[in-house]
Amino acid sequence: MLVVMKPQATPAQIAAVEEKIRSLGLSPHAIPGAQRVAIGITGNKGALDPAMFEGLPGVADAIRVSQPWKLVSREVKEEDTVIDVGGVPLGGPAIRVMAGPCSVESREQILETARAVKESGATFLRGGAYKPRTSPYEFQGLGEEGLKLLALAREQTGLKVVTEVMDVEDLPLVSEYADVLQIGARNMQNFSLLRRVGKSEKPILLKRGPSATIREFLMAAEYLLSQGNYRVALCERGIRTFETMTRNTLDLNAVPVLKALTHLPVVVDPSHGIGLRRHVPAMARAAVAAGADGLIVEVHPVPEKALSDGQQSLTPGEFAELMTQVRVIAGAIGRPV
Amino acid sequence: MLVVMKPQATPAQIAAVEEKIRSLGLSPHAIPGAQRVAIGITGNKGALDPAMFEGLPGVADAIRVSQPWKLVSREVKEEDTVIDVGGVPLGGPAIRVMAGPCSVESREQILETARAVKESGATFLRGGAYKPRTSPYEFQGLGEEGLKLLALAREQTGLKVVTEVMDVEDLPLVSEYADVLQIGARNMQNFSLLRRVGKSEKPILLKRGPSATIREFLMAAEYLLSQGNYRVALCERGIRTFETMTRNTLDLNAVPVLKALTHLPVVVDPSHGIGLRRHVPAMARAAVAAGADGLIVEVHPVPEKALSDGQQSLTPGEFAELMTQVRVIAGAIGRPV
Amino acid sequence: MLVVMKPQATPAQIAAVEEKIRSLGLSPHAIPGAQRVAIGITGNKGALDPAMFEGLPGVADAIRVSQPWKLVSREVKEEDTVIDVGGVPLGGPAIRVMAGPCSVESREQILETARAVKESGATFLRGGAYKPRTSPYEFQGLGEEGLKLLALAREQTGLKVVTEVMDVEDLPLVSEYADVLQIGARNMQNFSLLRRVGKSEKPILLKRGPSATIREFLMAAEYLLSQGNYRVALCERGIRTFETMTRNTLDLNAVPVLKALTHLPVVVDPSHGIGLRRHVPAMARAAVAAGADGLIVEVHPVPEKALSDGQQSLTPGEFAELMTQVRVIAGAIGRPV
Amino acid sequence: MLVVMKPQATPAQIAAVEEKIRSLGLSPHAIPGAQRVAIGITGNKGALDPAMFEGLPGVADAIRVSQPWKLVSREVKEEDTVIDVGGVPLGGPAIRVMAGPCSVESREQILETARAVKESGATFLRGGAYKPRTSPYEFQGLGEEGLKLLALAREQTGLKVVTEVMDVEDLPLVSEYADVLQIGARNMQNFSLLRRVGKSEKPILLKRGPSATIREFLMAAEYLLSQGNYRVALCERGIRTFETMTRNTLDLNAVPVLKALTHLPVVVDPSHGIGLRRHVPAMARAAVAAGADGLIVEVHPVPEKALSDGQQSLTPGEFAELMTQVRVIAGAIGRPV
Repeated sequence: MLVVMKPQATPAQIAAVEEKIRSLGLSPHAIPGAQRVAIGITGNKGALDPAMFEGLPGVADAIRVSQPWKLVSREVKEEDTVIDVGGVPLGGPAIRVMAGPCSVESREQILETARAVKESGATFLRGGAYKPRTSPYEFQGLGEEGLKLLALAREQTGLKVVTEVMDVEDLPLVSEYADVLQIGARNMQNFSLLRRVGKSEKPILLKRGPSATIREFLMAAEYLLSQGNYRVALCERGIRTFETMTRNTLDLNAVPVLKALTHLPVVVDPSHGIGLRRHVPAMARAAVAAGADGLIVEVHPVPEKALSDGQQSLTPGEFAELMTQVRVIAGAIGRPV
Repeated sequence: MLVVMKPQATPAQIAAVEEKIRSLGLSPHAIPGAQRVAIGITGNKGALDPAMFEGLPGVADAIRVSQPWKLVSREVKEEDTVIDVGGVPLGGPAIRVMAGPCSVESREQILETARAVKESGATFLRGGAYKPRTSPYEFQGLGEEGLKLLALAREQTGLKVVTEVMDVEDLPLVSEYADVLQIGARNMQNFSLLRRVGKSEKPILLKRGPSATIREFLMAAEYLLSQGNYRVALCERGIRTFETMTRNTLDLNAVPVLKALTHLPVVVDPSHGIGLRRHVPAMARAAVAAGADGLIVEVHPVPEKALSDGQQSLTPGEFAELMTQVRVIAGAIGRPV
Repeated sequence: MLVVMKPQATPAQIAAVEEKIRSLGLSPHAIPGAQRVAIGITGNKGALDPAMFEGLPGVADAIRVSQPWKLVSREVKEEDTVIDVGGVPLGGPAIRVMAGPCSVESREQILETARAVKESGATFLRGGAYKPRTSPYEFQGLGEEGLKLLALAREQTGLKVVTEVMDVEDLPLVSEYADVLQIGARNMQNFSLLRRVGKSEKPILLKRGPSATIREFLMAAEYLLSQGNYRVALCERGIRTFETMTRNTLDLNAVPVLKALTHLPVVVDPSHGIGLRRHVPAMARAAVAAGADGLIVEVHPVPEKALSDGQQSLTPGEFAELMTQVRVIAGAIGRPV
Repeated sequence: MLVVMKPQATPAQIAAVEEKIRSLGLSPHAIPGAQRVAIGITGNKGALDPAMFEGLPGVADAIRVSQPWKLVSREVKEEDTVIDVGGVPLGGPAIRVMAGPCSVESREQILETARAVKESGATFLRGGAYKPRTSPYEFQGLGEEGLKLLALAREQTGLKVVTEVMDVEDLPLVSEYADVLQIGARNMQNFSLLRRVGKSEKPILLKRGPSATIREFLMAAEYLLSQGNYRVALCERGIRTFETMTRNTLDLNAVPVLKALTHLPVVVDPSHGIGLRRHVPAMARAAVAAGADGLIVEVHPVPEKALSDGQQSLTPGEFAELMTQVRVIAGAIGRPV
């Protein structure tokens, strides 16, 4: 159930509706919109009667929400969510590009990469300090040292930092350094982590699990919003299929489907998606043409020496060329980069 | 093994190389290129010794082919194949759009659709006269009557006709009417059909099976070329994954991967690929941005009354709008439509 | 709709019901049962009114069929179908084992294998004379010569012959030699072939396509029955998943699901299913425990020299050991082998 | 690299080998076996030279390990691991059955279920106190109250308790009550959790992720063993495929494959695996026939009133019948239940 307030509804009227919802043993979630406030209701088992709310002062309408996801739904919030990341909007007309190495490996590596991607037009720096690796014997990231290097790179370039938080214990530390907290694909249904990060104030980049349905992806985002954090961007990064020639199968179908179902920004990761360096630009172009609001791309000064994901990382020169191509496609559909 | 002839090699020299190959119990496949002829060799169990061919008159080089597919490989023929469909090139810089209903249903339906898609810029008319249907109790197509209506539509509009041939028995009849023979996704590994259509002189549109790997797709095309028909275009039309929100998962990753591995044109079918009318244009745009050489799109005058695939068919008006969008993306990357 | 006749209904009463059905523009399918005849009706678009049939002489009941498959459904025929293959029942309490090489390769190979599997307790000999191969350059089978060798092996051992028919053109020839016509996994939705084989009088072994849903599998069988051939056994042979350590993923879940939905016998192919010789016996045991009515197993005198599928073929000795294990499991659940 | 000590090697000799390994900057993992100790080495980038260890006192052999997984490998430990769960062996000849509700819901529910499954022959009680749910609005488990009820049921029945730990924070609390810590399918690659639980002293039941390959599954177990906890059982519980008629696709192929690759016990969950109550017994029988060392089965006094997974839970009566069937199959292959 969604209670839509009139544009001129007063804070007191909004508070009264919230109080009414609580009195029924349910939870109100006020969702601020450009024109008006809407209040999502969760916690009910069956359908609620709209009449309980329609008569209250300031209420324009009470609408049944037909999907299992509520707060992430376009039914509940029609206009696109724009996340303010320290002054840089993520979502909205401009397409944002996040770039950087898979893992932070050294001071030189991250600073050199940051400068290069900044120059080519990226506005966010990606880089892992804590790395989820299939094998316990592989490089697991530099940890706090990596976070510090990311902060240094931010200082020098002005790029916003996106980095992964792997567990609840690291959350305070990672939050100190990150501008955007990434939740990795393998943790998409780590509900304990979702609940905790949902209580944080940081913007979140939630990656789709490699075999998560779109429904499960939206429900994972719903966990975050249900805890009060509405600053969530979704990231398609390739699904697992029978095909073995590509690392994953980047599912661009998810882009228009997600844009129709949710108001949250949709970012695409062509690097993990196809997993083959030479084909990353084609998938980046296609993602923009399909309607993505952002890209996240792996760039490494010397990919063949990368400690992880070298086979899918672009060189700074290849990334500059990719940005040119992305600008052409974005320009064609009237979106700045 | 591929024997590359010198640009100035004479027909007699080519014939001598072919004779040498036959004398070893193997099969020669002369592949005419823009600059020179190459001769593929098949039938060998192990690797051949290049020295057996390198000394022959007119031979420039003898190259080992590293992939299980030979004649479809870019190793064997570097330049893009351009198929001449009665004067209309398929492949090459221009992007071709094929459009029309899933099934031919009536004279009015096919003529009205043909005129509309022609006006919007399509150059090929698609439409099934023989329909492979999951259930024996569903509409199976008009058969020869459908073929005649397609021919009539061609007469009135000048569009080239693409239509499916389901079996060897119908091949002579379908060949009489079609400009391009479509091999459907479910028949991609119907090797008896592939062998027979490979002996035909008609251009072929080979659709990828819903769970065929890219390797299997190329091997299916290899069946066609190995029988002598080099006028083959490949069509990505969506693969089967765990996702249920879309009908199939259009695998745009296959586009750059195929373009790198083979010289054959690559067409994309966004209609079957995503299976949801409102999202077909986004996937069509993305396909062009990813490097597709053509699109095949379902259009029906009244989709909700279509005897098959109505939920993924565009109206003529929606198709006109899609063409506008496709032209914008194609223009941005310097390709005419 | 299914019209169930009374046990004592006369042929004339049955004919009258069929006539009534035809007069409505629909098709009757008389399904003989142990106790009584039922008449399936196909061709209707919407639901039919049972009252149209319930009053007719000899009619016990008119039942709506809730599934898209009709004639294969347990709703339409409750008791298990037992196929009489020249005196050997396939289906029913006894578990039948079919064994033999992937391809017929030579007189010695097929005769030696046939004698060995007969001795270990197989009742059917499998072996391909026409082989669907991913590559046009691989061994495609001995053709008619292979069929003749199978017939010779039958003569010498009394085993019934199961062999694949790949296309409509080969149907008359293959039918001359085979006791059971196999439709291969890649041809499961070759509807032209299904329609033709459905008109044949031979028993059929229909293999599940590697990415066919259970629903599609049943619909493919429905094609066969709708043409009049009710002597169809279904064969689960492994589906395509993301797992790469096994050749396919043998889907034993399909066994109880199919047994519940259809009256047709269910055979399991553990050889293609898991694709690894050492694990074939475990999957064969599991298939029997899950309720399979038969097994089809690849056996070759010298697997490492097999022209196809050697890595999943058992030696005659391994097959004898497998039969011992299968007998133990079958005995535990009260089924003879 | 695995250093195998002689049967009569002394503790001092073992310590000396461990010291030698540490001096090379690598990690030793002593693996006690029935006859002798073996010491796994991890942390090396390339291959090590066996000669470095073969001369040391007490060393029988130094063997290269060919797989990416080390400590879980049969190459490293040939005999089956038997986990002592408070006096009850898990692994080894006897097949163990774990049974109980998906979620602990109430005192009556869990006590009634525990008594019933005990009586039918289960030795472990399953039941979730912390439930990972796709939606934030679904029942999330009773938490500590649920753990207390499980302990009460153990007290009354003597059953060992298996229950899920969802995150590092709950680990101390859950460890207080559980006999076996379950790591859920969605957390199979929650590496932070794996590392922490790997440091615990409790036996672990690690469930396979719904789209984890067997390789990834073994690597996840390797995380646990690499932290010192060798008391790990693996649980196959169904993978995600294209099939929609069953909830998951129980992958019994994994049973023989895992048994060949690892010494750890393999448990099968037919309830989640097929997800349909009426078909759980068939899959349980098949799992035992395929070689599983245990089963974990959902049982609820009134499945249709269950707060989660009711459609796949057996009634106590159905479970008793399943146990009869399982005993028959187990008996046939010479294994007690």
